[in-house]
Amino acid sequence: MLIERDDDSQEVNRRSALGVTAPRGFWAGSAAAGIRDGKADRPDVGILYSEVPAAAAGVFTANRVRAACVELTERLVRQNRRLQAVVANSGNANACTGERGAADAAEMQRAAADLFGLEPQDVGVASTGVIGVPLPMDRVRVGIEAAAKRIRDDGGRAFAEAIMTTDTRPKEAVAEFRVDGRPATVGGAAKGSGMIHPNMATMLAFLTTDAAVDPAALDAALRLAVDRSFHCISVDGDTSTNDMVLCLANGLAENRILTPEHPDWPAFVETLTTVATELAKAVARDGEGATRLVEVRVEGARSEEDARRAAKAVAGSSLVKTAVYGADPNWGRILCAVGYSGAEFEPEGADVYIGDICVCRGGRAIDFDEEAARGVLRGDPVVLRVILGNGPGSAVAWGCDLTEKYIEINAHYRT
Amino acid sequence: MLIERDDDSQEVNRRSALGVTAPRGFWAGSAAAGIRDGKADRPDVGILYSEVPAAAAGVFTANRVRAACVELTERLVRQNRRLQAVVANSGNANACTGERGAADAAEMQRAAADLFGLEPQDVGVASTGVIGVPLPMDRVRVGIEAAAKRIRDDGGRAFAEAIMTTDTRPKEAVAEFRVDGRPATVGGAAKGSGMIHPNMATMLAFLTTDAAVDPAALDAALRLAVDRSFHCISVDGDTSTNDMVLCLANGLAENRILTPEHPDWPAFVETLTTVATELAKAVARDGEGATRLVEVRVEGARSEEDARRAAKAVAGSSLVKTAVYGADPNWGRILCAVGYSGAEFEPEGADVYIGDICVCRGGRAIDFDEEAARGVLRGDPVVLRVILGNGPGSAVAWGCDLTEKYIEINAHYRT
Repeated sequence: MLIERDDDSQEVNRRSALGVTAPRGFWAGSAAAGIRDGKADRPDVGILYSEVPAAAAGVFTANRVRAACVELTERLVRQNRRLQAVVANSGNANACTGERGAADAAEMQRAAADLFGLEPQDVGVASTGVIGVPLPMDRVRVGIEAAAKRIRDDGGRAFAEAIMTTDTRPKEAVAEFRVDGRPATVGGAAKGSGMIHPNMATMLAFLTTDAAVDPAALDAALRLAVDRSFHCISVDGDTSTNDMVLCLANGLAENRILTPEHPDWPAFVETLTTVATELAKAVARDGEGATRLVEVRVEGARSEEDARRAAKAVAGSSLVKTAVYGADPNWGRILCAVGYSGAEFEPEGADVYIGDICVCRGGRAIDFDEEAARGVLRGDPVVLRVILGNGPGSAVAWGCDLTEKYIEINAHYRT
Repeated sequence: MLIERDDDSQEVNRRSALGVTAPRGFWAGSAAAGIRDGKADRPDVGILYSEVPAAAAGVFTANRVRAACVELTERLVRQNRRLQAVVANSGNANACTGERGAADAAEMQRAAADLFGLEPQDVGVASTGVIGVPLPMDRVRVGIEAAAKRIRDDGGRAFAEAIMTTDTRPKEAVAEFRVDGRPATVGGAAKGSGMIHPNMATMLAFLTTDAAVDPAALDAALRLAVDRSFHCISVDGDTSTNDMVLCLANGLAENRILTPEHPDWPAFVETLTTVATELAKAVARDGEGATRLVEVRVEGARSEEDARRAAKAVAGSSLVKTAVYGADPNWGRILCAVGYSGAEFEPEGADVYIGDICVCRGGRAIDFDEEAARGVLRGDPVVLRVILGNGPGSAVAWGCDLTEKYIEINAHYRT
């Protein structure tokens, strides 16, 4: 059902690769337009289309410097709470591009709307890539036209590939749930892989469902899901200008409209959260230069918020990330990160585990099998656990190790 | 007068190398005790001693996980506001070591006190190095005894070397000012070089002066100086368990006691800030794996606090740091970091400079000489300037580039 789970039978892989097109009525396609450097050697324009108008919700970057597409799409979603298509490009963020950037985003929107016979306000726009360079609109126009022609009801993988930048693999997830006794599906695609940090996290993520959902309720569900997924990952501590998570619900499952009062509301929120979490973890695992996923579980915190703060600090610590890379069971760095996270706790009550191995009890060193701990750190994912003995709060955050490759990518690639 | 300034005549170098022993009546010495691994091949115990009791003030780590020496020395300084000696070691942080750690810190204090005929409460203790390993007290005792025998009134360099861990060079600074018409001196030593981030910053810094300063006023002056120096640097975003800035004022300049009402108070605060800033910059420049110092100046912010927030975000951004390393004039990352810093501003009013070269005006790309900008980024220090056009606030922060060497050091070295 989900990307990269252990049970990867052919059927599971096929379903998962459907990504955003797994739910009924969603189509997607891509084209190679040479947006980054004129060479049309990789897909860089993606279009997502729903057969019918969909309720829409979004979460957008907290950065004060916001790309033109973020301004445009957030305004749309706030005002109309519905979309029928999204046009996305990689290779150029259309950020810090002034009035021309705003005009270019609007033109992308209009071009896609014309091709599908929609109103511009039914089309969202997303961009990712280099900052401060105007979009090459001649190439973008050609790309949108080509992608629109190629949309298919199983085109999710093509869409997921079109939004990649330094990502090494497409990121998709699919999960199902039942509403009013019928099956419904949530699908998703996301791209990372630098400038990943709460709040926001992944630069672009798209979630689709065929469930019928009340637009205000969809917004609430998306915020709950994002708080536990994209807001809990960190690659490098940088929050981008273009971060956007969009969710479209087209209602083709023909259920009674989901609101918090509907008996299947919890199942919907849980499924949306599951898909968002799988995507977020895929983004963390594919962080620039990363060799493995790090999962940080904090338990026994005073509150869930304190637990999340502590888990994020550990997942975001350069020193923890390099220790994981070096397979060094240096738990002092883990406890140190919890210490500066802002979470309230007494170090004397804190235990630290690397995998199942207790490496620190009551804030102090204990004897442990160092070779075994190194083995855990060489695995993937690496699970780090901190128990604060301070209350009922628990949370999970995800990150990755920090390697020479991150430096190499970012010293020489323009994001 | 100051370390690493351009005019490095022999006399300047000699004065600067005096460091903490430049002011009258301060002595220092060191010994190699093999604290880290039993090999006594580098100095790792340092003692600072004043001929007379000195007013003392300190700023200590904000981390909730605090080394035993931090607990001990902070309590001392708060209660008595005076010290006559400090014993410091590198190679072992004596952090996360529980009751044994507290007893060991107290024993270090008592051992030094006995050697100088002082009361224990007149001796501060500082440690830096690996976390979670008990101090090898047999070696520490021998080291303290040896260092105490070797103290000299020009032993500042020896002290600065004894507190180094992954630092590649000792960090010292000296500056003079006049009080009541007579010369007085401020000296200092510091060590970095990972886990460097506000708040706190450098793991250990020691400032000395022969000026007579009221203890409460000394505390106020130190906080002003630290806010503009050690709290404005970042190497890797990690705040350590052992951070400590101690300041001792022994009064041998025989001036009227300095308080904010004294006409020479501003000169004292400025001189203390100058020495603290030189040390902070030396710590940033010598960040683990760093090849150059990055100075970030933010002007035109709504407030000084906003300016400082923005400058720190830019100096701390992994993406800015890797771009500097790669000599890539990627100003989008600079503006992006200001955008998520929390500072309030309109991107449309922001200009960005690399050295003297304007690379972004009004939040948008402009044409600039890219080769010249690369040249600036290859220099040292690299000055980045952001003008927000939003008010009178300005601030400076310091960081360093991020290189493969940082990864190498931290994947394989235990801090």
